[in-house]
Amino acid sequence: MAIERVGFIGLGIMGGPMAANLLRAGFAVTVWNRTAAKAEPLAELGAAVAGSPAEVASRSEVTFTCVTASRDVEEVVLGPGGVIEGAAAGSIVIDCSTVAPATARLLYERLAARGIGFLDAPVSGGDVGAKAGTLAIMAGGDAAVFERALPALQAMGKTIVHVGPAGAGQVVKLCNQVAGGLNLLAMAEAISLCRRSGVDPAKMLEVVSAGAAGSWMLQHLGPRAVAGDFAPGFMVDLMQKDLGLVLEAAHETHTPLPGTALVRQLFEMLQARDRGRDGTQAIVEALRLLAGEA
Amino acid sequence: MAIERVGFIGLGIMGGPMAANLLRAGFAVTVWNRTAAKAEPLAELGAAVAGSPAEVASRSEVTFTCVTASRDVEEVVLGPGGVIEGAAAGSIVIDCSTVAPATARLLYERLAARGIGFLDAPVSGGDVGAKAGTLAIMAGGDAAVFERALPALQAMGKTIVHVGPAGAGQVVKLCNQVAGGLNLLAMAEAISLCRRSGVDPAKMLEVVSAGAAGSWMLQHLGPRAVAGDFAPGFMVDLMQKDLGLVLEAAHETHTPLPGTALVRQLFEMLQARDRGRDGTQAIVEALRLLAGEA
Repeated sequence: MAIERVGFIGLGIMGGPMAANLLRAGFAVTVWNRTAAKAEPLAELGAAVAGSPAEVASRSEVTFTCVTASRDVEEVVLGPGGVIEGAAAGSIVIDCSTVAPATARLLYERLAARGIGFLDAPVSGGDVGAKAGTLAIMAGGDAAVFERALPALQAMGKTIVHVGPAGAGQVVKLCNQVAGGLNLLAMAEAISLCRRSGVDPAKMLEVVSAGAAGSWMLQHLGPRAVAGDFAPGFMVDLMQKDLGLVLEAAHETHTPLPGTALVRQLFEMLQARDRGRDGTQAIVEALRLLAGEA
Repeated sequence: MAIERVGFIGLGIMGGPMAANLLRAGFAVTVWNRTAAKAEPLAELGAAVAGSPAEVASRSEVTFTCVTASRDVEEVVLGPGGVIEGAAAGSIVIDCSTVAPATARLLYERLAARGIGFLDAPVSGGDVGAKAGTLAIMAGGDAAVFERALPALQAMGKTIVHVGPAGAGQVVKLCNQVAGGLNLLAMAEAISLCRRSGVDPAKMLEVVSAGAAGSWMLQHLGPRAVAGDFAPGFMVDLMQKDLGLVLEAAHETHTPLPGTALVRQLFEMLQARDRGRDGTQAIVEALRLLAGEA
């Protein structure tokens, strides 16, 4: 009954290393990517390359999707040649993209009507966590489906939590982006005050990271922000996509998120200056703009 | 030349356990507190109790002060019967309070005129860190004075960094409060969105804490906030005192800190409802008020 054949659709910065970790864990992996060239490194590691998402699903007990936006996942799962055309009843589809909770619920229902299980299982931990197999994975869907899929998830992540029914994984991922975005603002305002007060921000980061105001962002992205290294990591454009989903979901429940709304406006300043492909640590540049420094 | 005789003025939630750790490390400790009863537990541990701050300083090579506000530290150091009246030339005064950087510079100059060394050395890590001797300590002042005082600081803290000249310790502490305050808002907005979307916030905290959006606040205060446990820790009233210092210092350098200003307004909502003695995790209650839940 253990899962042996796994599919992976979407071999980008996150999906590529996640699929590679499934291969290393001993699963038979079939892959597909919109831009076919991205499948080549996986083929070299031993993956089979399919001609369509439907073909991936027809060869897999569990099929992962890891794409960018709601419309992308709807297309590869429900569109022509999509997963739903190839997946057998009793198989499982797991979407690791960050999309609207409503999209996750739609996919769950459409697949359930064919007897196919579905989990929304977005991830956190960046390309570093994807490569190391240490992602945090937040899964929504049926508990029995989660239990059955767990060995495959364990090949890619370290902290793997079934957080509730369909859509709950995406809700938790949106909460993750709320917290991450505000932790970035915390980092940026601390660096700005420190610099403009004439104190070395590298020393500030060293000691503040060790106390009650410490965070992953301060520790990992603070030094890059101080050094002026704005290479992504996680791009401003993608963060804005996610914060758009956050504020949409918050509006549906009339949940005021004044801090998150502010973070979105600061990233808007960067996008307005064609810096959407910078890493999110570039939020320090928005504060420099506010202060008339640039 | 090693320091043997140490004084401690201000035996509150932080100062009491810090003085106890100096005793445990083998220093001869003399203490004084405005409310004399708070000196008794230290006397039982072997501390001498002096009749005034001046007497503490006259018996000590290094004298610590750990009080609440700028006016308190000015009074115990510069006021009648204050440290400056008893401290010998060549001795050292170290203020661990969180006060304005300008106050630290004033104390440095007034003491330097008498040949007395001064460090501003505020701390982070809360009562837990004070008891465990694991505080983060951010010290401003002369490097030679820092080096000489280091063994005494090591009895109380774990990460101890000389961050720059007089006042720099307080600047870094204010940066710490900026980051801590916004990390609290991150925690609160994530919990609010999660709850109002019908997902269990305890599961959200478990998985988000493990990823790139993790922070000390989310990990340590998130569970208390979710459980409705608002006992301090660190009180809203004291956070507001510190955020007042932050915004004053930011104004002097014309540094826009829109997120920190927002955090201050949310805590203002709690103070308006007589909840200033709650712990800072009560910021989740401000978001409930915004959402019309209370």
